Amino acid sequence: MAELRREPILQRWVAITGQRWEVLSELLRQRREQRGRTCPFCPGKEHETPSEVFALRNPTSSRNGEGWSVRVVPNKFPVLRIEGEIERIGEGVFDQASAIGAHEIVIETPSHSADWGTMAVGEVAGVLRAYRQRSLDLRGDERFRQIMIARNHGPGVPIAHPHTHVMALPVIPRRIEDEVRGLLDYHGRKERCGYCDIIRQELSSGVRVIRETGMFLALASYAARYPFETWILPKAHAHDFGTLKDDQLPELAGLLQSLSGALHSLLDEPAYSLVVHTSPLHRFTEPRYHWHMEIRVRLALVGGFEWGTGFFVNPLAPEEAARLLRGEVAEAHPAKSGD
Amino acid sequence: MAELRREPILQRWVAITGQRWEVLSELLRQRREQRGRTCPFCPGKEHETPSEVFALRNPTSSRNGEGWSVRVVPNKFPVLRIEGEIERIGEGVFDQASAIGAHEIVIETPSHSADWGTMAVGEVAGVLRAYRQRSLDLRGDERFRQIMIARNHGPGVPIAHPHTHVMALPVIPRRIEDEVRGLLDYHGRKERCGYCDIIRQELSSGVRVIRETGMFLALASYAARYPFETWILPKAHAHDFGTLKDDQLPELAGLLQSLSGALHSLLDEPAYSLVVHTSPLHRFTEPRYHWHMEIRVRLALVGGFEWGTGFFVNPLAPEEAARLLRGEVAEAHPAKSGD
Repeated sequence: MAELRREPILQRWVAITGQRWEVLSELLRQRREQRGRTCPFCPGKEHETPSEVFALRNPTSSRNGEGWSVRVVPNKFPVLRIEGEIERIGEGVFDQASAIGAHEIVIETPSHSADWGTMAVGEVAGVLRAYRQRSLDLRGDERFRQIMIARNHGPGVPIAHPHTHVMALPVIPRRIEDEVRGLLDYHGRKERCGYCDIIRQELSSGVRVIRETGMFLALASYAARYPFETWILPKAHAHDFGTLKDDQLPELAGLLQSLSGALHSLLDEPAYSLVVHTSPLHRFTEPRYHWHMEIRVRLALVGGFEWGTGFFVNPLAPEEAARLLRGEVAEAHPAKSGD
Repeated sequence: MAELRREPILQRWVAITGQRWEVLSELLRQRREQRGRTCPFCPGKEHETPSEVFALRNPTSSRNGEGWSVRVVPNKFPVLRIEGEIERIGEGVFDQASAIGAHEIVIETPSHSADWGTMAVGEVAGVLRAYRQRSLDLRGDERFRQIMIARNHGPGVPIAHPHTHVMALPVIPRRIEDEVRGLLDYHGRKERCGYCDIIRQELSSGVRVIRETGMFLALASYAARYPFETWILPKAHAHDFGTLKDDQLPELAGLLQSLSGALHSLLDEPAYSLVVHTSPLHRFTEPRYHWHMEIRVRLALVGGFEWGTGFFVNPLAPEEAARLLRGEVAEAHPAKSGD
């Protein structure tokens, strides 16, 4: 039985899905051996997933059949379950809540071996459209406090077919809470948004800018924890990823496409994750939040100091990462006027 | 040139060592290929490391020669450098400090392929003695605010020979700051230590206890982020790892030895890290802190949700982890009276 537990000192929520060790160790074994297994996300395998909740489809195709370009389905093995009331229980110093929530998978393309770097900009825009639609739809449920969109790519991801996890949580993850708190503190001192200030300063110095478009900025974070850590922010203040406009979709898609391409030209089989950071929902909505995306590249270089201490050692200067990525992105997509 | 940078919203310190990409990618390549390289930490290779700052030695042996059981040397490739004043510089919204600090390596045993699980308890106690000695010695330098002791073991660690990193930092890592803040908040509400309360509650319920000895408690953390995440705490409140008494060394060593052995019997080539969490130093000393160790096991199971969001999904219930580890530990070391 899954449950959410909160660590009493750090107040960090963790989902404990509570499988038996026999089952888990069998899973570990299978994962090491399953390379040849057929992919449940490929066209023709639609019956292997739960019924779709959203899709971009050829108008003549039918629901849960082939003919889709993006398809969103509930996760067959969800961390959170959708039915039930959220019970919050204290047990001495400990707090827990029922693991109620949504857990969906965005299948990003019919092509098993595609990636954003090789997809057309319009295809990537379709993926973003699915993110936005799910983000808007799931907030209809008042039990949820946070939508989390997370995409893992590369070696180590159990299913190679490009996909993204979308989760609706009944609690606010510690990291988002920390960002909200940090932004409120900054706002309290300066009456300005901290991320807006970062954008202004980065645009004026330019050394960490990877690419600026009309509405977005991709930059190497000043205090990047990982080599090639990249942030993408809307230049105009906006707290909620769900407010992304139709005309922003292709521009953001183009930026993400060229960034993925750049990582692939610089690195041999890059493994990276992309996470959308957006304001909590309903009575926790915070208009002073500034939504953004963070891309974290996993290289074998990182020494593990950060485990347990939160002290990160990054061997690559963000300015050097920006220089390298800027070059690759510019080569793939020379600036157009209006960019 | 290495520097420390602070992320302005989360206020998290990161060390940027700023190597060129050409150098780093060569390093990555070498790391993939270097399996056969000779080990600089093995006996007879003492000249390949900087001169030792501490050692437990055969009385007839000489400094930087063979005949040691534990040896501590400055890291040949330190993240932080020991000389210089700490300059703190603002740059618009950003803050940085010079990367002044100490970075040492504890070479834990002459045996390349040993591990705590296979070493004698007295040998593990020697390693803990070295941790304590360095922790006490380094705090003589008033520039340092935190001693960090971190040990990585298993596949993925560049040098397999058992060793530990000891760093003295001129800043307090975010994670330790969060724990201090959480404990002060808890203390403000209850006038008790949060970890002492956890210990009391865990001892009374017993379901997450892995092993209790006279002075220490090993438990599966209630809101464990990772399968087999294990905490080891002194049962009597103590804020500073440096205050560890001589008679505590063998008892703690025995506990760590049997835990390492248990992980090795349960898991195939386990990769884990152990981090000592202890109070900051000098004017940041916090007597309401409660020092402890955290062991994090890396299994391929974890889904990557935690990247960027701080929302962890742990597939193994801590109670199940405790049951498994408790069995293994008890088998290896049946309780003695007084334990």
